[in-house]
Amino acid sequence: MPADSTVIMTELVLPSDANTLGTAFGGKIMSWIDIAAGTAAGRHARQVVVTASFDAVHFLAPVKVGQVLHIRATVNYVSRTSMEVGVRVDAEDLLTGKQTHTVSAYTTFVAINPKGKPIPVPPLNPVTADERRRYREAQHRRQSRIHLSEKIIAERK
Amino acid sequence: MPADSTVIMTELVLPSDANTLGTAFGGKIMSWIDIAAGTAAGRHARQVVVTASFDAVHFLAPVKVGQVLHIRATVNYVSRTSMEVGVRVDAEDLLTGKQTHTVSAYTTFVAINPKGKPIPVPPLNPVTADERRRYREAQHRRQSRIHLSEKIIAERK
Amino acid sequence: MPADSTVIMTELVLPSDANTLGTAFGGKIMSWIDIAAGTAAGRHARQVVVTASFDAVHFLAPVKVGQVLHIRATVNYVSRTSMEVGVRVDAEDLLTGKQTHTVSAYTTFVAINPKGKPIPVPPLNPVTADERRRYREAQHRRQSRIHLSEKIIAERK
Amino acid sequence: MPADSTVIMTELVLPSDANTLGTAFGGKIMSWIDIAAGTAAGRHARQVVVTASFDAVHFLAPVKVGQVLHIRATVNYVSRTSMEVGVRVDAEDLLTGKQTHTVSAYTTFVAINPKGKPIPVPPLNPVTADERRRYREAQHRRQSRIHLSEKIIAERK
Amino acid sequence: MPADSTVIMTELVLPSDANTLGTAFGGKIMSWIDIAAGTAAGRHARQVVVTASFDAVHFLAPVKVGQVLHIRATVNYVSRTSMEVGVRVDAEDLLTGKQTHTVSAYTTFVAINPKGKPIPVPPLNPVTADERRRYREAQHRRQSRIHLSEKIIAERK
Amino acid sequence: MPADSTVIMTELVLPSDANTLGTAFGGKIMSWIDIAAGTAAGRHARQVVVTASFDAVHFLAPVKVGQVLHIRATVNYVSRTSMEVGVRVDAEDLLTGKQTHTVSAYTTFVAINPKGKPIPVPPLNPVTADERRRYREAQHRRQSRIHLSEKIIAERK
Repeated sequence: MPADSTVIMTELVLPSDANTLGTAFGGKIMSWIDIAAGTAAGRHARQVVVTASFDAVHFLAPVKVGQVLHIRATVNYVSRTSMEVGVRVDAEDLLTGKQTHTVSAYTTFVAINPKGKPIPVPPLNPVTADERRRYREAQHRRQSRIHLSEKIIAERK
Repeated sequence: MPADSTVIMTELVLPSDANTLGTAFGGKIMSWIDIAAGTAAGRHARQVVVTASFDAVHFLAPVKVGQVLHIRATVNYVSRTSMEVGVRVDAEDLLTGKQTHTVSAYTTFVAINPKGKPIPVPPLNPVTADERRRYREAQHRRQSRIHLSEKIIAERK
Repeated sequence: MPADSTVIMTELVLPSDANTLGTAFGGKIMSWIDIAAGTAAGRHARQVVVTASFDAVHFLAPVKVGQVLHIRATVNYVSRTSMEVGVRVDAEDLLTGKQTHTVSAYTTFVAINPKGKPIPVPPLNPVTADERRRYREAQHRRQSRIHLSEKIIAERK
Repeated sequence: MPADSTVIMTELVLPSDANTLGTAFGGKIMSWIDIAAGTAAGRHARQVVVTASFDAVHFLAPVKVGQVLHIRATVNYVSRTSMEVGVRVDAEDLLTGKQTHTVSAYTTFVAINPKGKPIPVPPLNPVTADERRRYREAQHRRQSRIHLSEKIIAERK
Repeated sequence: MPADSTVIMTELVLPSDANTLGTAFGGKIMSWIDIAAGTAAGRHARQVVVTASFDAVHFLAPVKVGQVLHIRATVNYVSRTSMEVGVRVDAEDLLTGKQTHTVSAYTTFVAINPKGKPIPVPPLNPVTADERRRYREAQHRRQSRIHLSEKIIAERK
Repeated sequence: MPADSTVIMTELVLPSDANTLGTAFGGKIMSWIDIAAGTAAGRHARQVVVTASFDAVHFLAPVKVGQVLHIRATVNYVSRTSMEVGVRVDAEDLLTGKQTHTVSAYTTFVAINPKGKPIPVPPLNPVTADERRRYREAQHRRQSRIHLSEKIIAERK
């Protein structure tokens, strides 16, 4: 069940996390997303997992120093050895309590054995309507990636 | 209500967080506690808050690199301008899912105005039996600190 | 001309960059990619630029502590206010000189004015056959993203 | 003799150490206190030591970016396997030379063997009047902690 | 041939790299120089190398947050087990494209075996006029260091 | 008097400070030297100071993770606007108490006004025989640098 492996991280954006515009540095936010998503994947697999890919990381609004980030990572979809983990980041202004959706990302993690070879992970059992929608959309993203990749390879020949 | 400001942080312990024993460095854990507790206090006060003190930070078990920390901060008690925030840290072994209680701490934060002077914070309304127990125990800790301080000052004369 | 803004970064992978497997932490590599790509975009636009998205970040091989990373970022495609920057990361073993292709990524940056609003950037003039191929493939990726997005939105209704 | 293990650290407060108010982040100062106190305990014990607890960390005045911190750690008291280390932090304004007492803390460290079990440490021999006062006050803090703990445990039954 | 081991690093100066004047902290720049120079030496030797010395590190102009640094390291001279690596740092203003020469340094690295003992490195074959000039100037620096050292030792007797 | 501005820093070498050999990274040690020397210069000048140069930084012995570094910085010599600060780093093994001289460095700092222009600093008054020897040797280093620089410039013509 996706809810069993959901991870919620809370991070305060410090001056040392900021780029030269006074907003949080994209690389730093992706580090947090990587940790949150990897932890969710590790909880689902209960195996060592490694980052395979990041897709569709969209920065929707700037994150300001002093804001609190709520990073929520959920396993959306599972194939034999890989897991798609969706991540949503909301920024909270502590003085007003107002939250803004700032980043979303789809990441893929693979479970590996001590030799670094992919190993099977347990299947995912989407239960709620929302979980089933995320499962289905992850399949679309997967097909779209395969389709695009075939088109580019065909053209290169 | 204490539950409104509760903060849950999830952190993966990386090699760069470790001391020379391969376990998480005490200072790093206290940094995370400071951020979690400050965020809970900021959510309760909806004002700028600063760390006033840390008390009874107990390191109960070593935290190993690769474990995931769950850091939970709750406002226990509120006086006119200060808030006691209790923090509990549990370490999860991702391969087994087993969790261990590793650190507990009581911290005090003060709300300040732009000149740095303490300003009043909203009262706390403990609702559940657990919240009322934590409120009462925070009062005991406060009286114990005052009593100890008076004894030491008296002796120094 | 894409070559004018190409950025080459060299980074030594230190123990503090490693995850718990002794290989470079995905988040750290994405930080370096973000800096390299943002610098290439900034050189093309000669304006302040911010990260808009990361797509198709593929981790092809683990990066080991002690290896040297060569990170190459090139502007592939330019629309009115945004730039697609392709990034390729190769890891060099210093003792043998052998290089391995380890990560590839497509990132999008937007030029902004002091109020944070998107502003136009100069057009890109692909010259070599390789530059024209990268320009064309970036267009395919763009259409694929729009197509996928429309499909998901249609289904959600 | 406490003076034999006294540690003096000097740290410049950099922008990357600051919270969003432009003053040094509490967690960073506690990291420095942990290192200074652990070094003093390690020098007394000449064994591997780990942080057992932090008590009465009081932040008395804000520490500003650009100030120099003088962190002084002294072993106050020794029981069979643990050591209380007192730490005092003064901030110096480099332009005027003026020093301000900004933080004080009492920390406890335990010496451990390679299996992580506590092992005895050499007794402490307070010599000066000041060292004897600190030894006596550490005993009061210890009794106060035991007393408070018994009271709370009794009430929970 | 010196060109075979030349290293070019590109670094964006972030707020967390800055000292209290808003310019890049000297220690941070020397960290980058150490990595660039060590990588060039490692590429020449194809052995493990360690820093032996830094000489004549001159900070010619302040480096501002937001500028991009271009760090170029070249092996100038090789004795039996050590290599002199020259490093030049230029700062680019991304908005104007203007570059300023900001730091220069001469560093010496030694190749070591697994026991930490110095081992021979391949000879250097300067080809261009510029490479031969750098080779000759490195010899002058070497003689100057030996001469100065003898003078100071003689006086101390 | 040089003793008035002497700075003593104590630093514990953590795993995150180590290069891939398990010994402290040269760049990290130079960062600490920069901070210690800059603080000593700032204390002598009671003005804002910036790093002008690093000379003769010799790494005499590897520094191991877990060792404690004692970094001592003293103003050796003062010209009109610049100060030579000598720095000596000793590594202590906490288990045995044994100290090893590991790094020495000569650094030059300049006092500046708010526009970044050099401004005069108070003269230095060496008192002890040791202070006078360091003052004299700093003069030799200065002349040696000028002599070498003239020779190289002459040859380039």
